[in-house]
Amino acid sequence: MTVVALLSVAPVTEGSMAGEVAKAVDALEGFDVRYETNPMGTVIEADDVGTVFAAAHAAHEAVDGDRVSTVLKIDDKRTVEGPAGEKVDAVEDHLGRPARGGE
Amino acid sequence: MTVVALLSVAPVTEGSMAGEVAKAVDALEGFDVRYETNPMGTVIEADDVGTVFAAAHAAHEAVDGDRVSTVLKIDDKRTVEGPAGEKVDAVEDHLGRPARGGE
Amino acid sequence: MTVVALLSVAPVTEGSMAGEVAKAVDALEGFDVRYETNPMGTVIEADDVGTVFAAAHAAHEAVDGDRVSTVLKIDDKRTVEGPAGEKVDAVEDHLGRPARGGE
Amino acid sequence: MTVVALLSVAPVTEGSMAGEVAKAVDALEGFDVRYETNPMGTVIEADDVGTVFAAAHAAHEAVDGDRVSTVLKIDDKRTVEGPAGEKVDAVEDHLGRPARGGE
Repeated sequence: MTVVALLSVAPVTEGSMAGEVAKAVDALEGFDVRYETNPMGTVIEADDVGTVFAAAHAAHEAVDGDRVSTVLKIDDKRTVEGPAGEKVDAVEDHLGRPARGGE
Repeated sequence: MTVVALLSVAPVTEGSMAGEVAKAVDALEGFDVRYETNPMGTVIEADDVGTVFAAAHAAHEAVDGDRVSTVLKIDDKRTVEGPAGEKVDAVEDHLGRPARGGE
Repeated sequence: MTVVALLSVAPVTEGSMAGEVAKAVDALEGFDVRYETNPMGTVIEADDVGTVFAAAHAAHEAVDGDRVSTVLKIDDKRTVEGPAGEKVDAVEDHLGRPARGGE
Repeated sequence: MTVVALLSVAPVTEGSMAGEVAKAVDALEGFDVRYETNPMGTVIEADDVGTVFAAAHAAHEAVDGDRVSTVLKIDDKRTVEGPAGEKVDAVEDHLGRPARGGE
């Protein structure tokens, strides 16, 4: 899969957002994507950018709230095949260590 | 740590960015932060937002290039303590499964 | 119109991006949106979030390049009507002056 | 000025954000920047990226709230001089019309 994106969908609410964020994550199941949630959003991989936009739209709609804030950041590498994880592998090759720290 | 952020720093270049991104990640070592890189950026946790801005600035400066593009998204929860991973745990509690799929 | 968004679409190229960005802006003409480009992206207003996602998708596809980077940030105020410009007006009411400076 | 950025700072609150956003905008007055607020954030120009990070930090700190969400997107063109408005001018040259519509 060649298109990688970061999707954050959240209701603007003073209470816990976790239940609504879970709905957004669950909506991704309806699409041909790989995804994994981190503390700042969900990384999505798909074969084409149309699938990414459709999945992001569905995730946005799945969240209830008077005001919903969404951020979608897409990296569309059109001439390269390969899983998103290779991007981290390449950085770690240069670092010579895992790309994490402070633990 | 209570401030969580997503930082993406990249040179605008047609070649591989991995070596420059590695410099940005390595610059985080100089700060009291926890961090972990994913395919769309690096999640950073710190005790205060000033540390996040300082670390992001250093990461940006560490990247060489005629044009450098940076995105910093901060979630500053000022009244709650707890690791960033708890945000994912809370979503998974609502989902009743890991917050990833399509693998 | 109640949904407001900021859309940035750009090819990752070392040359001038202006011609490709113009294609992305022009693609918005095919949708029922209001839009205005600023130095960091294009503010889009629409009556519903589906139109925003469709317009953003078309803008992304309109840009040629081996690698295209898109950022879409949506503020979906579902219970409030009113033009996006009112958001700036409200800030200026609090400031007691125009929300710009340094000129 | 050569560094251009888009800064959005907002408290996560169900009420009006305009008063707090105004504090963030006002904090920019303490820095050597040009800025103008649009419905999705404030475009900031400065001579160096350190000023942008410092101004964004001050704007973030100026906002009161239990939870504050900030997005900072920086375009650091290191080898080109010129006002940010030239970016829009160049797009309009390609379009052959103003980069806005739907009004």
